[in-house]
Amino acid sequence: MSDVVTAAMIVIGDEILSGRTQDRNIGHLAAVMTAVGIDLKEVRIVADEEDDIVAAVNALRARYTYVFTTGGIGPTHDDITADSIAKAFGVPCDYDAKAYAMLAESYAKRGMEFTEARKRMARLPVGSEHIDNPVSVAPGFRIGNVHCMAGVPAVFQAMLDNVVPTLRTGAKLLSAAVHCPFGEGVIGGPLAEVQKRYPDTIIGSYPKFADGTFWTELVVRARSQDALDAARIEVEAMVNGLAEQR
Amino acid sequence: MSDVVTAAMIVIGDEILSGRTQDRNIGHLAAVMTAVGIDLKEVRIVADEEDDIVAAVNALRARYTYVFTTGGIGPTHDDITADSIAKAFGVPCDYDAKAYAMLAESYAKRGMEFTEARKRMARLPVGSEHIDNPVSVAPGFRIGNVHCMAGVPAVFQAMLDNVVPTLRTGAKLLSAAVHCPFGEGVIGGPLAEVQKRYPDTIIGSYPKFADGTFWTELVVRARSQDALDAARIEVEAMVNGLAEQR
Repeated sequence: MSDVVTAAMIVIGDEILSGRTQDRNIGHLAAVMTAVGIDLKEVRIVADEEDDIVAAVNALRARYTYVFTTGGIGPTHDDITADSIAKAFGVPCDYDAKAYAMLAESYAKRGMEFTEARKRMARLPVGSEHIDNPVSVAPGFRIGNVHCMAGVPAVFQAMLDNVVPTLRTGAKLLSAAVHCPFGEGVIGGPLAEVQKRYPDTIIGSYPKFADGTFWTELVVRARSQDALDAARIEVEAMVNGLAEQR
Repeated sequence: MSDVVTAAMIVIGDEILSGRTQDRNIGHLAAVMTAVGIDLKEVRIVADEEDDIVAAVNALRARYTYVFTTGGIGPTHDDITADSIAKAFGVPCDYDAKAYAMLAESYAKRGMEFTEARKRMARLPVGSEHIDNPVSVAPGFRIGNVHCMAGVPAVFQAMLDNVVPTLRTGAKLLSAAVHCPFGEGVIGGPLAEVQKRYPDTIIGSYPKFADGTFWTELVVRARSQDALDAARIEVEAMVNGLAEQR
């Protein structure tokens, strides 16, 4: 299993925790990671509080191959991601010459003042590399295995597109879905038996509820196509067998 | 601040981390907590793995007034919430007589077999109280300050409706939003000054991006209406002042 690559995500922002803003980045990162063969293992949503961010970053960067953060990299007083990440890594947070020059040039071109607030966006943990921002200039940054990106979905997605080609990707976890018209109470026993016979696969059962009845989406996952196919065929046979009994 | 009540949420489920299912419960819990005056401080999404669930439960139940979990309470082999919570609390997980009788009666009434898989749903950490499930019989459960509910949104919402009246609620964090047609680079400096003058409030700045331009939603939060109004009036004056300069 040496080619398993793992990741965690930290969503930074009071606005998600208050329910004011609906997160749209978790699902996007999850789908992208799955597509490139990286296992997203944990997500944490934390408040705009330095201690909380530091604790989450240090817990997760030690445990997973990569950590991705969204939010808190803008120019306002509640944007404390750069300072918090610097603290987590024990390095200073300071004006980055390249980011500063890039921002200064961009605002000059547009005839806009390079305010103190805007200058804040050039402050990065010392030792960071930029993550290009094709939407709105201010860069994200990477330090160690931690990648810090914007919270605005359009900007996050553009930054992530720049990050993905730099990542080591693993053996892709293949998956196959089997529609099951029965609730989990019907299939739970036989499904557990199939899982036992195919230890190299992960068989998930996701209950759905609509119009007063339960049905189930069964998902088989495996790192080899052969293992996937063998287990999927048994799951399908199980569902068909149950249908014939009814 | 003795009347501040805090909460954390644990979303249990591989299907969210793989991107296959979009979570719909975080936003709902966040909105309900805000409405009743409980501060949701952290959310973790963890895989269907016992060690991960135990670690998250024990970290969060020690730190916050309440913990809410969603997912993993069904009848299939990947539903391991009850076992994991029991392990976190150091108690056995066993058949609960009341839940068992309730489930047995429900299936008998409907002429359905009370399968081994269905019986699994009557297994609860010893010492738990039920959380009624008006949608599909199998109860959620509460042990200590941890409330475990279903992952299916309709069932989760119904269970949460039963839980909320049992919670101690705090001084409600009031909020007021101010629309700001400028990006964060324009307002960052003056907004930080307002925040400094009103330390009893939390002023958040949420960048929005649409049609190629940035605008900002400014949100003032406070536990007293007077503090809220005073800061909101200053934020509005700041935005109007900037508009006149342009």
